[in-house]
Amino acid sequence: MHSPPTTKASSWRRRALVGSGVAMAAVLALASPAGAQELDPAAAVQANLDNVFVLLCAVLVIFMQAGFALVEAGFTRAKSVANIMMKNVMDFCAGAIAFVAVGYAIAFGGDFDGAGKFIGADGFFLGDGVFAYGTLTPSVTFMFQVAFAATAATIVSGAMAERTKFKAYLVYSFVISLFIYPVVVRWQWGGGWLFQMDTPFYDFAGSTIVHLTGGVAAFWGAKVLGPRIGKYGPDGKPRAILGHSVPFAMLGVFILLVGWYGFNPGSELAADAAIGPIAMTTTLAAAAGALGAMTTVWIRTGKPDVGMVGNGVLAGLVGITASASAVTAQAAIIIGFLAGILVVLAVAFIEGVVKVDDPVGAVAVHGVCGAFGTLCVGLFAREDVEGFWQQGLFYGGGAGQLVSQVIGIVAVAAWVSVTSYVLFTAIKLTIGLRVSEEEELAGLDILEHGSPGYGEGFGSFTLGDSPVPSSPEAAEPTAAPEPTTV
Amino acid sequence: MHSPPTTKASSWRRRALVGSGVAMAAVLALASPAGAQELDPAAAVQANLDNVFVLLCAVLVIFMQAGFALVEAGFTRAKSVANIMMKNVMDFCAGAIAFVAVGYAIAFGGDFDGAGKFIGADGFFLGDGVFAYGTLTPSVTFMFQVAFAATAATIVSGAMAERTKFKAYLVYSFVISLFIYPVVVRWQWGGGWLFQMDTPFYDFAGSTIVHLTGGVAAFWGAKVLGPRIGKYGPDGKPRAILGHSVPFAMLGVFILLVGWYGFNPGSELAADAAIGPIAMTTTLAAAAGALGAMTTVWIRTGKPDVGMVGNGVLAGLVGITASASAVTAQAAIIIGFLAGILVVLAVAFIEGVVKVDDPVGAVAVHGVCGAFGTLCVGLFAREDVEGFWQQGLFYGGGAGQLVSQVIGIVAVAAWVSVTSYVLFTAIKLTIGLRVSEEEELAGLDILEHGSPGYGEGFGSFTLGDSPVPSSPEAAEPTAAPEPTTV
Amino acid sequence: MHSPPTTKASSWRRRALVGSGVAMAAVLALASPAGAQELDPAAAVQANLDNVFVLLCAVLVIFMQAGFALVEAGFTRAKSVANIMMKNVMDFCAGAIAFVAVGYAIAFGGDFDGAGKFIGADGFFLGDGVFAYGTLTPSVTFMFQVAFAATAATIVSGAMAERTKFKAYLVYSFVISLFIYPVVVRWQWGGGWLFQMDTPFYDFAGSTIVHLTGGVAAFWGAKVLGPRIGKYGPDGKPRAILGHSVPFAMLGVFILLVGWYGFNPGSELAADAAIGPIAMTTTLAAAAGALGAMTTVWIRTGKPDVGMVGNGVLAGLVGITASASAVTAQAAIIIGFLAGILVVLAVAFIEGVVKVDDPVGAVAVHGVCGAFGTLCVGLFAREDVEGFWQQGLFYGGGAGQLVSQVIGIVAVAAWVSVTSYVLFTAIKLTIGLRVSEEEELAGLDILEHGSPGYGEGFGSFTLGDSPVPSSPEAAEPTAAPEPTTV
Repeated sequence: MHSPPTTKASSWRRRALVGSGVAMAAVLALASPAGAQELDPAAAVQANLDNVFVLLCAVLVIFMQAGFALVEAGFTRAKSVANIMMKNVMDFCAGAIAFVAVGYAIAFGGDFDGAGKFIGADGFFLGDGVFAYGTLTPSVTFMFQVAFAATAATIVSGAMAERTKFKAYLVYSFVISLFIYPVVVRWQWGGGWLFQMDTPFYDFAGSTIVHLTGGVAAFWGAKVLGPRIGKYGPDGKPRAILGHSVPFAMLGVFILLVGWYGFNPGSELAADAAIGPIAMTTTLAAAAGALGAMTTVWIRTGKPDVGMVGNGVLAGLVGITASASAVTAQAAIIIGFLAGILVVLAVAFIEGVVKVDDPVGAVAVHGVCGAFGTLCVGLFAREDVEGFWQQGLFYGGGAGQLVSQVIGIVAVAAWVSVTSYVLFTAIKLTIGLRVSEEEELAGLDILEHGSPGYGEGFGSFTLGDSPVPSSPEAAEPTAAPEPTTV
Repeated sequence: MHSPPTTKASSWRRRALVGSGVAMAAVLALASPAGAQELDPAAAVQANLDNVFVLLCAVLVIFMQAGFALVEAGFTRAKSVANIMMKNVMDFCAGAIAFVAVGYAIAFGGDFDGAGKFIGADGFFLGDGVFAYGTLTPSVTFMFQVAFAATAATIVSGAMAERTKFKAYLVYSFVISLFIYPVVVRWQWGGGWLFQMDTPFYDFAGSTIVHLTGGVAAFWGAKVLGPRIGKYGPDGKPRAILGHSVPFAMLGVFILLVGWYGFNPGSELAADAAIGPIAMTTTLAAAAGALGAMTTVWIRTGKPDVGMVGNGVLAGLVGITASASAVTAQAAIIIGFLAGILVVLAVAFIEGVVKVDDPVGAVAVHGVCGAFGTLCVGLFAREDVEGFWQQGLFYGGGAGQLVSQVIGIVAVAAWVSVTSYVLFTAIKLTIGLRVSEEEELAGLDILEHGSPGYGEGFGSFTLGDSPVPSSPEAAEPTAAPEPTTV
Repeated sequence: MHSPPTTKASSWRRRALVGSGVAMAAVLALASPAGAQELDPAAAVQANLDNVFVLLCAVLVIFMQAGFALVEAGFTRAKSVANIMMKNVMDFCAGAIAFVAVGYAIAFGGDFDGAGKFIGADGFFLGDGVFAYGTLTPSVTFMFQVAFAATAATIVSGAMAERTKFKAYLVYSFVISLFIYPVVVRWQWGGGWLFQMDTPFYDFAGSTIVHLTGGVAAFWGAKVLGPRIGKYGPDGKPRAILGHSVPFAMLGVFILLVGWYGFNPGSELAADAAIGPIAMTTTLAAAAGALGAMTTVWIRTGKPDVGMVGNGVLAGLVGITASASAVTAQAAIIIGFLAGILVVLAVAFIEGVVKVDDPVGAVAVHGVCGAFGTLCVGLFAREDVEGFWQQGLFYGGGAGQLVSQVIGIVAVAAWVSVTSYVLFTAIKLTIGLRVSEEEELAGLDILEHGSPGYGEGFGSFTLGDSPVPSSPEAAEPTAAPEPTTV
């Protein structure tokens, strides 16, 4: 499948040229028993196989919701754990309704000319004008896309943990799934202007479309919210606020790794010979990301920090997502290792220099490594890899692809920055974005949701305890052993 | 696949008309290399695809066992957590042996006439007389069915948590998998009398067959057991007994959501064009269930309770299970939302009016929403949806299907009520159903299983602590903040 | 597929005769669009289906990493929980790099004659000389094999928990994935000398290749390390050191059960009619293993110990792994039940008689039951089962297969014993294998990794507590209720 982009048969074109005549014919043929006879028998079975594979990949991506919830819960304090689980359930639930009703139409509906380069306006509620990829049925295409939309929305949750009003969370995660994210999808996977450039932007499974989008929104959310009480000392230096459960966080990392085998191989949108190489580059980048982060944090602090290694796995995964179909095994290891180094430095930079309090490192993992991974397509791509057709800069292919990658990154970051900043500010000025100081110190569980996340003699919230500490000092992590900036 | 029920080709008929000549021929052909040549090459590949898909769906359903265990563990107290994990492991393990030896034969063995309308008696231990669906091999059919049997059995566990003797649990979960549940399956999916009605009962993936069965047995189990010590105050009003881990409960909900993508799409029993729409309605109903429950509990109590939202997700899933293949996306949202409202009201009703202590809300989720979802087939079904062939009451199709749905619900509820009541009463009168007061107050872990569920300084059961409180009062949740009936 | 071993078409031969002309032709054909036309259309779709199935099975096996981590974390103390999660992440990550670079070439590269019977030396980094099974692409073959390699490495972790230096762990798990395990694979699945015997050794999914290898390395690791402080009293009798979380351990068991449906059915390496029977025997052996262990521990101690039942599930799974494709449902139940009994006795024997401290029972589960399961092929195999071709000893087939099984077990145990003993001793004499007494008593999390596994008022490690107990006695489990040898 080393076809140049002008050949419609490549899996990459199939990603974007949704709704083309041939593909829709196949889809419609599948959708009715009579029509099914129009496909030759083996092609009909292959179409069923494509649908089975992509549906199961969608299920793996949906499983990632549990992974995100556990990573966020583990990296934060016990007193808001129920709030965190609730947010992660509700962004999937509210997001799915928003996406089926409106978001999917914005991303994939109608023509690709004029305004259609920027936004779709047809096919609401999977009605007339709905599209599907290649041999996939509209509902399987939807399932895969709704799982991705939920991922973009849930990334934001972690950066804003432990201090966001639940009502505000409901509003912004709904708007991201309804509008902000679908427009980004339209530009590229929906066949819009980024895809229509002379050298099209390339983002195989969403280092930019999903992760940079989530990471940038997370940045502005955490910025508008401000840091948690006690995060910065009187000297302005960041203090470590330890999470309450490393096993939850690392179980979350394992689940995210497993889910990524739906995220990346499933983005091939067909059960063809490319899924194996994609799974392999995904594996090796994750592994190298852990090694890169472990080495870096070990050198910087003298200890192999467990949470940072978890973020290293995720950094490698985010980093390979744009190029999983376009690079060799060796390049995947290099990309993952660099992403692992980068995430450690980026966490320290965002926390210590930019002074934005991101409890789980979402901006570093998804934003910084998402942009880095997108650039890697322009650097490491190979024409002899299944699923791509030209050389990156490091293999003599010139800077053309790299320039397109930069355009895509800047455009998406700008769009998400403007819209999410407006969104968070509007929420702040109306229903309010942040809980009261009293509530933040007590934890969000009891005052926002009515009961503690851990009950009756388990963890810190025993029924006999007063849920609200008597003073802000009592709740501040001043007793943390050796606060560190990493 | 809009064929009327008299056409054998519909996926729905395929569910029930097991062992028909054509299907068995395909199965036998598959089972031997020589026979395989009898199928045309593409059909042989499709048969392999069907088997792969349904086997992987069975694995997803088996994963639900972990979800049920975590939901039950999270919603109950730390002092019986090991007992809860043990029960959930053992109902799968004992149930699998019971089902392969006897249950599967009762559900699917022998002829469909005479007594065969009510119970099968052939094909014990997957021997002679064993049946399989369509292109599925007998062992893949068994794998899918044994996973369902384990689901029915495990539902009961939650309602009887924190006070049931482990020996009693082993006996009743074995009997449910061996006899009570297989007879219900026989009536419908096994081609029995419910399926043979003029307007056949319709329950795509088991709102009644699995969930109502489990919910009704759960009700009688909890009823015969009586409430936990301290659940009802001297005034007879229910008091909240908080669970010990919201993250466990919600991780369980995520796992159940993921597993439901095996439960519902897998119930198509083939890898055809209907699996996408089924996955989509399943997703939307789960999402709407969360929204319905959140809205209702927020209005009733002033707080968006996390556990109730978890039950809302499950309510939406149980509610759509009967009609996942028969309704539109919009109807799925309505069904899920109504189920989410219903579960909040039903929990309060069962606890506050019926005065049955069901720690996890299993009767409300599986029993009430199971019956509700089964009725929805008669209300919301559409002839233009993949997998169904006539209109429900709301679309002008008359009340015929609805009447059949009521017959099925009443018949199953009656069968399970009688048999499970007899079972629980017999256990109570012989080996005993309930642990001693001392053991209940101490928690079941140490006295039933020999060691605590949490060890050495973790959670409430440190090794230095006395595991048995000195008095009943000490263990009563009298310090619970604002007991509420929701 | 009852062909004798001389027929190349059997799935079993396909396991070993990698790189044969026909298979490679199919693989190469798949890898290029032009070549794909050389396969007839249905065969090309079947090849895609094979790749989808085995890739998804690899994902399930990778999910087992989370299961191993949770079992080990649950069965040990809270003070080293972060270290345990870290080890389980890193053995997958370091192992994947080692395996793609070197291990895969040792296992599967080059010719099968001469030295090639014992070790491969071609195809490093999946380059020239790389092989693939049947219709699988090289990358899908790699994905499945790397998941297995990670399993072998991670088994060792549990036996050495709570006292091993993290640096030492990194070194030995890297060497196992790089060299020790790949050589074992070469001997059998890579077409080496065990496979070339007149009556070839048979180990369908790795009772010996994976589990005995892991279990034997685990034994020598725990032996060279010595027992944890406080494990043996002054009288030399073992004392129970309770784990900190039964729900983690049992969630881990559920995840391992789910992952085993990738491990065993995926080992068919094709989506054919044998996957159903394999899944069924796997299920029944797991179920019977739980029953066997429960019965045995109940009789021995008077209580149905939960952790031991978890090990019983795993024992049944390990026990059936060699013969999952070769025995009946009834034999699977017998094998699983016996493995469940065996694991209880083996845990007591290793702990009480051999005096090796294995905190999770890894040697008993993977070593003892792995050897037992491998022998069962020679005892219980049937010619009328999908995937096998001759009778075991119990069905009149003579002792020929049993002798080959003994040869395989002894050879693998000897190889792993020598290499792993040398490895652990070399580490001990250089960088050191064991942490200091102070660190062991404090737990590995703070001193090895820089922060506790549970934070801020959750579990035993509150920020206000001194993480280091003032004396060895304070940390000893002397208050354990009724220490027992089981």
